[in-house]
Amino acid sequence: MSENRMKVGCVGLGIMGRPMSLHVQNGGHELHIWARRPESLEPLKAAGANAHNSLTELIQSVDVLITNVSDTPDVEQILLGPSGVKETASSGFTVIDHSTICPVRTRYMAEALAEMGIDFLDAPVSGGEAGAIAGTLTVMVGGKAPVLEKLRPIIDCVAGKITHVGDHGAGQITKACNQLIVAQSLVAVSEAISLAEAGGVDPAAMREALLGGLAYSKVLEVHGQRMLDRAYPPGFKTRLHSKDMGIVVQAAQQLGVPLMGASLAAQWLHTMAEQGRGEEDSAVVAELQRKLAGQS
Amino acid sequence: MSENRMKVGCVGLGIMGRPMSLHVQNGGHELHIWARRPESLEPLKAAGANAHNSLTELIQSVDVLITNVSDTPDVEQILLGPSGVKETASSGFTVIDHSTICPVRTRYMAEALAEMGIDFLDAPVSGGEAGAIAGTLTVMVGGKAPVLEKLRPIIDCVAGKITHVGDHGAGQITKACNQLIVAQSLVAVSEAISLAEAGGVDPAAMREALLGGLAYSKVLEVHGQRMLDRAYPPGFKTRLHSKDMGIVVQAAQQLGVPLMGASLAAQWLHTMAEQGRGEEDSAVVAELQRKLAGQS
Repeated sequence: MSENRMKVGCVGLGIMGRPMSLHVQNGGHELHIWARRPESLEPLKAAGANAHNSLTELIQSVDVLITNVSDTPDVEQILLGPSGVKETASSGFTVIDHSTICPVRTRYMAEALAEMGIDFLDAPVSGGEAGAIAGTLTVMVGGKAPVLEKLRPIIDCVAGKITHVGDHGAGQITKACNQLIVAQSLVAVSEAISLAEAGGVDPAAMREALLGGLAYSKVLEVHGQRMLDRAYPPGFKTRLHSKDMGIVVQAAQQLGVPLMGASLAAQWLHTMAEQGRGEEDSAVVAELQRKLAGQS
Repeated sequence: MSENRMKVGCVGLGIMGRPMSLHVQNGGHELHIWARRPESLEPLKAAGANAHNSLTELIQSVDVLITNVSDTPDVEQILLGPSGVKETASSGFTVIDHSTICPVRTRYMAEALAEMGIDFLDAPVSGGEAGAIAGTLTVMVGGKAPVLEKLRPIIDCVAGKITHVGDHGAGQITKACNQLIVAQSLVAVSEAISLAEAGGVDPAAMREALLGGLAYSKVLEVHGQRMLDRAYPPGFKTRLHSKDMGIVVQAAQQLGVPLMGASLAAQWLHTMAEQGRGEEDSAVVAELQRKLAGQS
């Protein structure tokens, strides 16, 4: 047993959490799992993970808990709820939260755990399902530097790049910045394609001309192609980007920062999520722009 | 005298037009110039250009006229005004317009010149003063393919990349797409930096974390650094980006395309241009966001 081998528990075994858990196990750590829906456990049990019957039992069996769930209340339930980390774990226990959730609540939770001697890192990721499967996610970490150094061997299992951006909540703030830039880029590229079409210009030629210049972005390259093809398999789902933009706008409000561009882009994503396109890639906002312009 | 050597007139000898004219002359063409303000002619006369006393005399001395001026009425005056191209030039004459102007008026002017057998290319550029000096501009060309092929040896003198995007006006539409994407990217990056600062995150660390992922854009890289440094030497001047966004919004209106994101970004640029920041790089919109957030 290597000195770096740790007992790691994972909660949240969805399209991100499942491949990430397997990478942690393949990295030489002892993987423990629990899930509300026992059927989520099967593929990982087959791969050799230790399944538990309750969250409490999981927490008592590991040194480190990784959470990879949908939204702020889910994380809060696991950390501060009955039979959760704060009630169950001992001093010296550590939590890594890979979810994308509210930065302000993240700080509150980190402080609540610190009272019990429990360490916490907010470590949201970008790179989507493809990055999770490849183990090349970009990880934005908030928390104490020594805690990151202790847990780096675990996070390394899923990461292409780890950036320590500051203290508790800083990872979530950085992820919010990422999501608001991507959202506004989606709107901008949607509008450019729509203007090109209305002006009788082949939007593929427009995109090609722009890729070489100052308008270049990953979104123009990757999502621009999806918009031209009008094909939106995710990628990153609209309902999740919509949820993340809710976090961005709420955090901005709590911090007294008006985000006018991000708020507008959030409306686009919310609209498409509610109009039945939530399971498609968030490049689908281009279809809202086409509808606005009478182009669909 | 090579077969490709042409007599080329240039009007508009400003920060873009002057280096571009010199590249045309260095490319082996015979350079002719005229300017409203004769002092603009001096540096080019010193370099061997043939200076003329009137626009009419210039037009009568060349086969091809290049325009590189500020706005739609300036181009219209040169092409369709008294003693301009339509009145003076013969069938077979050609105009290349490198200015950024209204796409709809561009089509009208191209048609008016076509009646006289005069060819026209709209060929707006991106890459700024640095690209003009290096001769590596991205050129977006609208017009007839055979006309572009005839004039390619001239445009090649200033271009790193030439893309033929469609018929008359398509170059201007594509430039409008470029400007609206860059403008919205400026707003998005401004907001991200502001949110990071408000959230207690070092915005330089945030930018560094994001550069490796899906939020990557040239604007995050180039203008993001200017915003962090709070130093805004142009680059591309706010008053010109503001003018271009006026063209974008007007073209969108004429084409029946609502551009909500671009309209918002236009307001940011207009505001900074009118608040005395017009000569600074358009990354200066970050200072408006800081002011909104109470961070200046």
